[in-house]
Amino acid sequence: MALIEYADAAPDVREVYDDIKATRGVADVNNFWKALAVHPPTLKRTWESLKQVMAPGALDPLTKEMLYLAASAAAGCAYCTASHTAAARAKGMTDAMHGELLAVLGMAAETNRMAEALRVPIDQGL
Amino acid sequence: MALIEYADAAPDVREVYDDIKATRGVADVNNFWKALAVHPPTLKRTWESLKQVMAPGALDPLTKEMLYLAASAAAGCAYCTASHTAAARAKGMTDAMHGELLAVLGMAAETNRMAEALRVPIDQGL
Amino acid sequence: MALIEYADAAPDVREVYDDIKATRGVADVNNFWKALAVHPPTLKRTWESLKQVMAPGALDPLTKEMLYLAASAAAGCAYCTASHTAAARAKGMTDAMHGELLAVLGMAAETNRMAEALRVPIDQGL
Amino acid sequence: MALIEYADAAPDVREVYDDIKATRGVADVNNFWKALAVHPPTLKRTWESLKQVMAPGALDPLTKEMLYLAASAAAGCAYCTASHTAAARAKGMTDAMHGELLAVLGMAAETNRMAEALRVPIDQGL
Amino acid sequence: MALIEYADAAPDVREVYDDIKATRGVADVNNFWKALAVHPPTLKRTWESLKQVMAPGALDPLTKEMLYLAASAAAGCAYCTASHTAAARAKGMTDAMHGELLAVLGMAAETNRMAEALRVPIDQGL
Amino acid sequence: MALIEYADAAPDVREVYDDIKATRGVADVNNFWKALAVHPPTLKRTWESLKQVMAPGALDPLTKEMLYLAASAAAGCAYCTASHTAAARAKGMTDAMHGELLAVLGMAAETNRMAEALRVPIDQGL
Repeated sequence: MALIEYADAAPDVREVYDDIKATRGVADVNNFWKALAVHPPTLKRTWESLKQVMAPGALDPLTKEMLYLAASAAAGCAYCTASHTAAARAKGMTDAMHGELLAVLGMAAETNRMAEALRVPIDQGL
Repeated sequence: MALIEYADAAPDVREVYDDIKATRGVADVNNFWKALAVHPPTLKRTWESLKQVMAPGALDPLTKEMLYLAASAAAGCAYCTASHTAAARAKGMTDAMHGELLAVLGMAAETNRMAEALRVPIDQGL
Repeated sequence: MALIEYADAAPDVREVYDDIKATRGVADVNNFWKALAVHPPTLKRTWESLKQVMAPGALDPLTKEMLYLAASAAAGCAYCTASHTAAARAKGMTDAMHGELLAVLGMAAETNRMAEALRVPIDQGL
Repeated sequence: MALIEYADAAPDVREVYDDIKATRGVADVNNFWKALAVHPPTLKRTWESLKQVMAPGALDPLTKEMLYLAASAAAGCAYCTASHTAAARAKGMTDAMHGELLAVLGMAAETNRMAEALRVPIDQGL
Repeated sequence: MALIEYADAAPDVREVYDDIKATRGVADVNNFWKALAVHPPTLKRTWESLKQVMAPGALDPLTKEMLYLAASAAAGCAYCTASHTAAARAKGMTDAMHGELLAVLGMAAETNRMAEALRVPIDQGL
Repeated sequence: MALIEYADAAPDVREVYDDIKATRGVADVNNFWKALAVHPPTLKRTWESLKQVMAPGALDPLTKEMLYLAASAAAGCAYCTASHTAAARAKGMTDAMHGELLAVLGMAAETNRMAEALRVPIDQGL
């Protein structure tokens, strides 16, 4: 697993790293970007999509970050769960909010699986 | 797939249906509960857990509902996606909010899978 | 989606169908086999593996069938959930056993997801 | 990732830990509970549900444990797979039973995916 | 579930539809795009990413399409499996190639699950 | 987690190891096989299936290996992703091909999830 550090990066990769650092106000980019840099066009496209998707809109940044965390945890991605838990905390998720998010996640998993195991027909009108 | 209607339900099942209808202010319960009624102790336990988890707390009801939807969609449960989309809409999710939720879901799926495919190591300190 | 019926099947496919029917004592094979018959070597290999795996051994046939159902429901395969629920019922799964299996499935889903969302370290010694 | 030890736990958390230890006859609780203790109402609700679901019923404790293991492995939860393999062994799962469970799990995964890839229609009457 | 037809689409949506039709040489766009049009910025971003990703490169278009199909089937998405099977066939996937792809998918599912259930340590040097 | 080395293996297990080593021209078998050896009939059946499935056919060995990798990554199996990435590289997958495979995987994940979240109806004629 290669991680490409800024010092070793080609100009097109550095340009993306610079934009991530400026947009987020951080000193270094996460390992995800350093791993994705093995394929510069994918690095650039993914960052530009992410920047657009996570910009403030009808949903506030904390809600978006918690939705990202919920989806990542539901998909069982350990790296993503770790990084988006940290990001949500940085945007204001308290212990109580984290606890309730976990409870919703668990409840969703339980009812998702039972609904599928019982092949429940979708309610009329939906 | 049996769905147990109120008219055909035993007293312990009716008691749960009555509580769902009173809590939610609805005329009938969703198919999920009618399917789960094949096993009354599971019906009762699941409803009581759900009622506790979805009650207002540190997170507001709409945020909880959107997290439930994000987790259900990430798990690929069609029934759950349909019913929690409807529930989120009833609690105030607009077209723009739904669109942004979808965008976050998609972005999370994409980055989740790439992070796993690259086996990205968790960032130091997380 | 093509389903290959016995009347239209080539000799190598008919041979597999005949063995399924004889082994299970059924008049016709399930749709799964009729779909898999688009690729005869996969049909033959899959049936021979399944026959070996599901034969009585250290686990009795009903337990094996319920494990198959649990794994299929956890994977969200609607076709498989439907056919293995029917197979488990045919081998003696009662309503109460089915209800308890559902409860275990739901509980496992809930705790699986919470364990992953919290990145719980594996207990020492395991 | 914080794990809350008994010595550092608040009274409501200790009460749950005490009940887990008494019910299972163990000297300490698993890491899962120590992680879940970050949100005491979720800890309490989850333990009470689990205790109810795993109590002897129409299915014996070993069968329930193996179903829990099958569902956890199918969901790809490493922590859960490790702890429920240990729990099933403690309840009497032999090497041969474990080997057959693995074989059923693998076979289910293979046929689940092929049934979905072929979009096999559910058999008439199911 | 709303599907937005060309006749009812706003100019920014029509522009994307026009580009899809021109790029693929088709008379109408698939339902996926008509559904995604509920959120025009997501429609536009997703199409532009897809167009870039699926363009000829180090991998030929048929190989890319079969990889897309394998990933979609592994994720259990029925819509995606149906549309990418059709797309792969249009690009030259024969019955024999489809059968072998299915066999690989099934084999991967089986060994994936067994590797996870056994928590196999990654081989040294990888 | 026991790994059974050649020196400690029973004759039926050694026979499989010998065939793997001869078929692949390697000095030792991967950890997967050493773990699976806890259940010799599953070891033997799985290897024989794998050998048949991965043999050259309508698809060349590199394409099969990349499909295996795509399915394994989509299923989130870290062990399998690591070993099939190495296997694909050994069969000729370049950095550029790996990068494009990753891009397809990510794009598939994103569109899979959005198609499911929107419950897109399958296009007519498919």
